[in-house]
Amino acid sequence: MRRPFLGVIGAGSRSSLVEDLAAEVGREIARHDAVLICGGLGGVMTAAARGAKEVGGFTVGILPGACSRDANAYIDFPIATNMGQARNAVIVQTADVLIAIDGGYGTLSEMALALKLGKTVVAIQSRFAIPGVLAAQTPSEAVSIALAACPKM
Amino acid sequence: MRRPFLGVIGAGSRSSLVEDLAAEVGREIARHDAVLICGGLGGVMTAAARGAKEVGGFTVGILPGACSRDANAYIDFPIATNMGQARNAVIVQTADVLIAIDGGYGTLSEMALALKLGKTVVAIQSRFAIPGVLAAQTPSEAVSIALAACPKM
Amino acid sequence: MRRPFLGVIGAGSRSSLVEDLAAEVGREIARHDAVLICGGLGGVMTAAARGAKEVGGFTVGILPGACSRDANAYIDFPIATNMGQARNAVIVQTADVLIAIDGGYGTLSEMALALKLGKTVVAIQSRFAIPGVLAAQTPSEAVSIALAACPKM
Amino acid sequence: MRRPFLGVIGAGSRSSLVEDLAAEVGREIARHDAVLICGGLGGVMTAAARGAKEVGGFTVGILPGACSRDANAYIDFPIATNMGQARNAVIVQTADVLIAIDGGYGTLSEMALALKLGKTVVAIQSRFAIPGVLAAQTPSEAVSIALAACPKM
Repeated sequence: MRRPFLGVIGAGSRSSLVEDLAAEVGREIARHDAVLICGGLGGVMTAAARGAKEVGGFTVGILPGACSRDANAYIDFPIATNMGQARNAVIVQTADVLIAIDGGYGTLSEMALALKLGKTVVAIQSRFAIPGVLAAQTPSEAVSIALAACPKM
Repeated sequence: MRRPFLGVIGAGSRSSLVEDLAAEVGREIARHDAVLICGGLGGVMTAAARGAKEVGGFTVGILPGACSRDANAYIDFPIATNMGQARNAVIVQTADVLIAIDGGYGTLSEMALALKLGKTVVAIQSRFAIPGVLAAQTPSEAVSIALAACPKM
Repeated sequence: MRRPFLGVIGAGSRSSLVEDLAAEVGREIARHDAVLICGGLGGVMTAAARGAKEVGGFTVGILPGACSRDANAYIDFPIATNMGQARNAVIVQTADVLIAIDGGYGTLSEMALALKLGKTVVAIQSRFAIPGVLAAQTPSEAVSIALAACPKM
Repeated sequence: MRRPFLGVIGAGSRSSLVEDLAAEVGREIARHDAVLICGGLGGVMTAAARGAKEVGGFTVGILPGACSRDANAYIDFPIATNMGQARNAVIVQTADVLIAIDGGYGTLSEMALALKLGKTVVAIQSRFAIPGVLAAQTPSEAVSIALAACPKM
């Protein structure tokens, strides 16, 4: 039986408050034996991957560039797409459910694409109000909602 | 000197009112000697391409599938990306400016990606209120704003 | 009825002899009212596009980068894929038939991909002997073979 | 320190002899604590991933489609690119070194692309003679050559 893949999306460079949220989301994902998938770079992506590794989880990073070494230090499995922002589609397609944390236009683009593809999107501290996105107040709540929405395998 | 490339984004299947708007956007683009680039399929994409061809313009369709014949009948240059929704990134990167007409989650995703990449986005009858998007009331106004925002070449 | 799309593949930097061949291939494509599609950059790609423009043809360039301005000066319709070498798949999928001129590993990769996808590949002065590739001695012969192999539309 | 990523490329449907070779390549990769990356589908890809799992290794599958469930049963980390054959570029970019087993045009395309990008390619029972490819007689020899060619991290 395959583990759930939870995607974490959010901007490359945010406040320490947002990074604390992301790290706790990463820990919660790993505590539930789910795999964390993200964009593999900095900010929310680094914080979430660091959190997952703190509690022994697995992390996948879908990179925009052609070089695996661009991944942050907490990515176990870096994937070098060399597709730029189009790599967001790979994150969205590969994840069972998406958790958005804060985020700018890039995150908005991923949220919309996920909804377009029929995936559940859970948001913490989203700066955009998008119909169809499920709001969560805490990392624990976000991961609970996300796991409940995972297709049964 | 290269002609401006104006991207038209919008959903695959809409009302006749929306398609009338799209056709007039296509005509306006062609009247100003700009190239229309779109997703190459139905709804807003067919209507806009039809409008451009009515007044002798050129049309480029960036298709999600692997077969050029999936393009609607008004596309002069179909590009078969076989990238699915990730082809939206190719539309956004290739267009100088984007004009969004009505549209659902897919269009929202393209608008956000365009803003992320620093491109101007003009919207007619958008269903989403996104900071940074320029609103237009008519096709003529949308194309005027778009042409004014094109980088000088 | 859609015009045939003939892909021209070859390396970015070659000898003047190879570029003369490429320019004549471009002219022959345009003389037969076919559209030239190529990678949009230098060497064989520039020479072939220049040839096509000399006799009034249309040229499409599928670029590896995110910026249309990277296209050579003879490309009418630059497409900014930002997919790096994966853009070769877009050239192969979009072209009805491929004509390879000289070329290195990149060209070999495109030839093999085209054969994998069931497309006809014609080669002039190929440096690799690949079963299934049709050899031509002159630009005129290459374009004749390519046009004969185009699917009827 | 990141583990080496060894890419295994080969056709989707081969003889049982070829699959035996692929399974032993997979076992050798895992015995050396390297990660196996492949196209995630059948034939050589299934056999190699099965071998790696038999001895406790990790497997990554870069899928051509949009659905993770298309992966074979031995893939730990399926990546749903929805890029079709262009996903080969992701395998090549992500792997430190490529091992080709038997294979048809698709494999040839990946070998050429890897050489174009400056990666080492080791081949067992290749059906094509490509300058620059290193030949190996056995799975053990192929993995030894591949590991020796991995960039130091």
